Amino acid sequence: MNVLEDLEPQVRALGAALRARGWRLVTAESCTGGLIAACCTAVAGSSDWFERGFVTYSNEAKTESLGVPASLIGAHGAVSEAVARVMATGALAHAHAQLALAVTGIAGPGGAVPGKPVGTVWLAWAQADGHVGAELLHLPGDRGAVRAETVLRALERALACCAAEPAP
Amino acid sequence: MNVLEDLEPQVRALGAALRARGWRLVTAESCTGGLIAACCTAVAGSSDWFERGFVTYSNEAKTESLGVPASLIGAHGAVSEAVARVMATGALAHAHAQLALAVTGIAGPGGAVPGKPVGTVWLAWAQADGHVGAELLHLPGDRGAVRAETVLRALERALACCAAEPAP
Repeated sequence: MNVLEDLEPQVRALGAALRARGWRLVTAESCTGGLIAACCTAVAGSSDWFERGFVTYSNEAKTESLGVPASLIGAHGAVSEAVARVMATGALAHAHAQLALAVTGIAGPGGAVPGKPVGTVWLAWAQADGHVGAELLHLPGDRGAVRAETVLRALERALACCAAEPAP
Repeated sequence: MNVLEDLEPQVRALGAALRARGWRLVTAESCTGGLIAACCTAVAGSSDWFERGFVTYSNEAKTESLGVPASLIGAHGAVSEAVARVMATGALAHAHAQLALAVTGIAGPGGAVPGKPVGTVWLAWAQADGHVGAELLHLPGDRGAVRAETVLRALERALACCAAEPAP
């Protein structure tokens, strides 16, 4: 699979939806490590709607760049609904965007803990109007497959967030 | 070209070199839009040495996330040696890493300005010991080719930075 090429249709659809609303996107990525941002910016003209991205791979990065309390990570783990939601709202607060996507998960092959097998991914989103949501994904396959599917699900979710708010 | 797979050998070599020195890497990406970070984190175990990444696509992101003065961008343009260098030193200052890579360039097809054609990329690096450097690249090909070649050059440069400092 060539993620950058294969997901170009989804990126183009998302870009058109964001542009129609005058929205910009910010990303906060842990397990995908910049791959959502890389897919978005693979498409020419994405600077119109992609504002910035945070690749918060370490826990310190989640705390310092996004404002996720270290205590929250300590209590729930980095791969948790609580952390994913604050990554999304924190990204929105630290950017000039109307929509934020955040992902934190276990891409494998290592990193699994009891109750959180490889393929466990929390996807969260936050909008400037206050809407915040999160979704738990259980994805099959190896590291590359988990990451690619996470990017696809994130793009689809962002498009759904746009679709829920009619373009002016 | 499948960048994530094709550059895996270079990423593995860089990871080994960083690990041998107890170093961690931070990235600050404009034209590559997260692709350096995505390539690094495609390899399992990269959390040992990849600390965080900044995808500073907008000029505001360069200023707010990395501390690049807006006046510097105004004076030299976002694609300039001055901005690339401050992106690198700013990334190092805003992370817990010993090596920073920064890229800013014109991936095309749009964005060219007089004296800066498509394929013009500034690559800069900064090390915790104070070393800072920058290199001007003139890369051929389309947007995908320019971005992929930029990632390769950045990885090679990071490996050279490591090689210049013998592992303990």
